[in-house]
Amino acid sequence: MNLDPKWVVGFVDGEGCFHIGISKHASMKDGVQVLPEFVVTQHKRDVQVLYGLKAFFKCGVVRHEKQNVFCYRVRDRKALEAHILPFFERHKLKTKKRVDFLKFRRVVKMMSEGLHLSTEGLKEIRILRESPSTRET
Amino acid sequence: MNLDPKWVVGFVDGEGCFHIGISKHASMKDGVQVLPEFVVTQHKRDVQVLYGLKAFFKCGVVRHEKQNVFCYRVRDRKALEAHILPFFERHKLKTKKRVDFLKFRRVVKMMSEGLHLSTEGLKEIRILRESPSTRET
Repeated sequence: MNLDPKWVVGFVDGEGCFHIGISKHASMKDGVQVLPEFVVTQHKRDVQVLYGLKAFFKCGVVRHEKQNVFCYRVRDRKALEAHILPFFERHKLKTKKRVDFLKFRRVVKMMSEGLHLSTEGLKEIRILRESPSTRET
Repeated sequence: MNLDPKWVVGFVDGEGCFHIGISKHASMKDGVQVLPEFVVTQHKRDVQVLYGLKAFFKCGVVRHEKQNVFCYRVRDRKALEAHILPFFERHKLKTKKRVDFLKFRRVVKMMSEGLHLSTEGLKEIRILRESPSTRET
């Protein structure tokens, strides 16, 4: 499946998620782990589109999420920095998901500099993650 | 908001819906009304994208659906025929939503020919609407 960059931006504006996970992790600084991930979920009938995204971005995995739901996911920080961030810097999202992306990018860059390992850095990540301009429900 | 056709296809592949409504209507043939509608829903924070689609397609309305949800909707058959169908014929959807679109197009064309007013035509529309290749849940 050959995907056009503009189609990819439109599809991610609809279905994509720039998620900043924070989970408990005994061996990590402050007992938590920061886990940014780029995710696109789809009903199983469109799993081929997720493989199309995987080929397009040249990174990530396609996984069975639950029941009829599959997801395309990029967690590897080097892959995020090499493929995902530059793409959405060049091709701007049209929805407010762009705000999520900019926060996501900030967190990934902070992690590259090791700033998430400091209490101060972790505090900033929590603030970014919980600030009201992220997707409301 | 200036939207690119390929972005629109990607966004509709994610968020669009080609809905074939059938509702009870005392004054209509067989007591039912066939109502095809093209709909894109969004959280209120991205209502400007819905207005962008309205401008792009040169038809339809943006409505407050419920709570934080807004929708862009095209119900007018002439508008569907003049703007929506030709666009998605020229710019193919990548997901299985294309199957929904092809059924939707068949129903709109049947209605233009008045075929939905015959019991036979209505039967075909019900079969199209309920066939298993439409979006499963």
